[in-house]
Amino acid sequence: MTQFNKIKIDWQPNKALEETLHNQILNYFIKNIMSGEWLIGQVLPSQRQLADIFNVNRSTVVAVISELTSLGIVEPHIGKGTQIANNTWSLYSRNTTPEWDHYINAGMHRSNLPTIQTINTLEFNENIIRLSTGEMAPELFPHKMMRTVLDKIPTKALSLNYLEPLGLLELREALSEHLKTHGINAAPDQVLIVSGSLQALQLISLSLLKKGSTIYLEEPSYAKSLNVFQSNSLNMVGIPMDKEGICPWLHLGNRLDKDAILYTIPTYHNPTNHVMSLKRRHELLSWSKSLQLPIIEDDAYRELWFDEVPPPPLKSFDDTGNVLYLGSASKSLAPGLRIGWVVGPKPVVNRLSDIKMQADYGASSLSQWVLTEWITSGLYQEHLTSFRLKLKSKRDYLDLLLKEEFSEIATWQLPTGGYYIWLTLNKKIDTSKLFDQGIKENILINPGYIYSFKNNVSIRLSYAYAKEEDLKTGIKKLSQLIKKL
Amino acid sequence: MTQFNKIKIDWQPNKALEETLHNQILNYFIKNIMSGEWLIGQVLPSQRQLADIFNVNRSTVVAVISELTSLGIVEPHIGKGTQIANNTWSLYSRNTTPEWDHYINAGMHRSNLPTIQTINTLEFNENIIRLSTGEMAPELFPHKMMRTVLDKIPTKALSLNYLEPLGLLELREALSEHLKTHGINAAPDQVLIVSGSLQALQLISLSLLKKGSTIYLEEPSYAKSLNVFQSNSLNMVGIPMDKEGICPWLHLGNRLDKDAILYTIPTYHNPTNHVMSLKRRHELLSWSKSLQLPIIEDDAYRELWFDEVPPPPLKSFDDTGNVLYLGSASKSLAPGLRIGWVVGPKPVVNRLSDIKMQADYGASSLSQWVLTEWITSGLYQEHLTSFRLKLKSKRDYLDLLLKEEFSEIATWQLPTGGYYIWLTLNKKIDTSKLFDQGIKENILINPGYIYSFKNNVSIRLSYAYAKEEDLKTGIKKLSQLIKKL
Repeated sequence: MTQFNKIKIDWQPNKALEETLHNQILNYFIKNIMSGEWLIGQVLPSQRQLADIFNVNRSTVVAVISELTSLGIVEPHIGKGTQIANNTWSLYSRNTTPEWDHYINAGMHRSNLPTIQTINTLEFNENIIRLSTGEMAPELFPHKMMRTVLDKIPTKALSLNYLEPLGLLELREALSEHLKTHGINAAPDQVLIVSGSLQALQLISLSLLKKGSTIYLEEPSYAKSLNVFQSNSLNMVGIPMDKEGICPWLHLGNRLDKDAILYTIPTYHNPTNHVMSLKRRHELLSWSKSLQLPIIEDDAYRELWFDEVPPPPLKSFDDTGNVLYLGSASKSLAPGLRIGWVVGPKPVVNRLSDIKMQADYGASSLSQWVLTEWITSGLYQEHLTSFRLKLKSKRDYLDLLLKEEFSEIATWQLPTGGYYIWLTLNKKIDTSKLFDQGIKENILINPGYIYSFKNNVSIRLSYAYAKEEDLKTGIKKLSQLIKKL
Repeated sequence: MTQFNKIKIDWQPNKALEETLHNQILNYFIKNIMSGEWLIGQVLPSQRQLADIFNVNRSTVVAVISELTSLGIVEPHIGKGTQIANNTWSLYSRNTTPEWDHYINAGMHRSNLPTIQTINTLEFNENIIRLSTGEMAPELFPHKMMRTVLDKIPTKALSLNYLEPLGLLELREALSEHLKTHGINAAPDQVLIVSGSLQALQLISLSLLKKGSTIYLEEPSYAKSLNVFQSNSLNMVGIPMDKEGICPWLHLGNRLDKDAILYTIPTYHNPTNHVMSLKRRHELLSWSKSLQLPIIEDDAYRELWFDEVPPPPLKSFDDTGNVLYLGSASKSLAPGLRIGWVVGPKPVVNRLSDIKMQADYGASSLSQWVLTEWITSGLYQEHLTSFRLKLKSKRDYLDLLLKEEFSEIATWQLPTGGYYIWLTLNKKIDTSKLFDQGIKENILINPGYIYSFKNNVSIRLSYAYAKEEDLKTGIKKLSQLIKKL
């Protein structure tokens, strides 16, 4: 977790000011240390780096650091660099700030991978072309329908009170009806509303699994890119996929770890966009039933088919309560609603809802009412019909660009639904370098290694977010970078 | 966690039907077991209880159970009762349902206390009078203003995309301005938006604290009623309060546990409604600074003052980044927004935001936009001005009722703000019995023991939720029940 120890600086002294560069830099340091912005124990960039960042002579930096050292505010540490040792108050009362750095490093949960942290931050940089982003472009969103939906929220709902532990009854009833169209029969009290399906994974980790329990999952997998399982000290085991999906019996046989669970995204799998065949779905379910291995089925992308409806969810064949089914409004409607759902046996959803009451006391009531209106008014289906067409045309456009730029250097499959193209390079290159060099060229990609248990030469591309002109520029730049590497 | 093992039944056979009672009951059992509603390993109520529940002769129950036993579907277990042993599919393939019960009991997080679970569920029973509920009555909510706010959400916001890890910049800017009115100077990048301040406690537990770390907190405390700290294996130590607040130095001296943290609600403390004096605030902060003990200041009720503004938050005197400050829209505007905020040193809020990205990938964008509009339009302040008056008049009404019914049997203090009256009984009675008997009389109270580390003879009452006529009926019934006990 060292990324928190090193101070990052994005400031420069102003050469046009009357104040000397020395004093500007000195005051900048003191202000940041005094205000608690920089913490005791954090380390400054090297003097050479500071000179670069500030665009000043190294001698100016040396003089400022030496002055701060004599004040006792920073201290040189061999091998570590210059460390914040004290703040101005501590000059008369030593060490009065908590050593937050120590707390930050002590926490039970693991930080996200640096690559993920960078992606999470850079996605909000307006100048960057987001070639991998897993969300709908704002211009594809039906803004007018949303205004209609907001106007329709019943007045009694506007006071936004707390809701019962399972979530808004009206929404659970609407979902119970909606799920029938996917072949799933679930009463409203078998449905739990969560704050996005990522939260469902967090709740399952905390509520149903022991420290060290095994999670079997596809190799590669979206879940690998989330630290949620690792943070909860669970043991992830990747299972290779063939064209029909995973065959865990080939790799695990009947000898499973105790207290294990299987996580799968059978439909428009993230990141590869594979669809598990109907036959494989039946095989997987009966194998896991025979071993009493529970399945978490993540079905976030189901609604986004192009030419034909995908095979029914595993949950629709589940006659014994073997499957916990996760759905979400994030990919098909709006991620910012932060609404997902879990369908499973009543005692299991009750246990999850009890822990949810400790985690956040329920999902946004406003978001729940809004989604209820979308579904019950029929506008959700209306939106999906038109969204599928737009998404398909964006898929075609990205496929065209790839044919122009990547035919010689990579392979991919044409997706039949979902958001992603999984691009696999013909030659092994350092995709971590590619990621860094892309950022310098203002393009952001999700490199395959964040999804994989092994070294990996793939890239997840998304046609859902970037505009056509940005896709064009971005894909061209990406192919140039790859050719150079 | 045995509450999940026992099956709860709220069904009765219909004597008007042609089908025999025996067959109706048999089919009811088989349907619930076949569908996975009841799980292998769960235990049925006793035969005597079943006869009561179904309102049939015990002999009918005995015959049905015996038939299910002969089918291998249930099994008697000495000392445990009749257990679900199998489902119909398992008649040809044994044990095909995962033993969910085993998973439910294995999870890392603790269940909520049964009393809390009962409260969480019964609050959604329309017939019950909620004498302790910590939320605003829907009829006090400014519905018209909310419509205005919804109409004002900018169109570009309606697509509800993912937001950056710290939360919506516009909201953080609005809060940064708003916090100045409380004497807190925090830049927008020192503010993290969370899904309610309960989530802040969960994130702090997971991100900054080690297993077994100590949390010092007021005795009694709201946090005690949440299992969030216990679920994360933290060690809670209660500190008694005097009229000015806590004096931890009297109880702990300078010898603190390693890696400890202090949690306090200095303003309109939940559940006692005490306000920490200005002098005590300064003493507490300098004591904790001298020991480098971080403070979590929960300030959810600050805006709800009646006649005079309370002393400024600890955070407003905090010149060294010692305090993590928690605010919330739940008590002053609407709990269903599920929006709170954490203010602290940048590296700390960044660490919390990184873990939040694992927990739920951000709070509802819709809720964040709505709160931004409330604050920036000035409607939030307008609402507060009128809400304070209404709340004060409800306080006066509850105080009047208590003077009529409780003068002889309890003591309390007139609150100067917030939601609660902490009623302390003159004689020791079994408040757990009182809780149960209250439910039978359709009144719901939060008994003191859920907030306390010791046995406790207090009750948290709330004037914020129940209507005047319900308060009147409820308080009368409550005093009668207490007098009987």
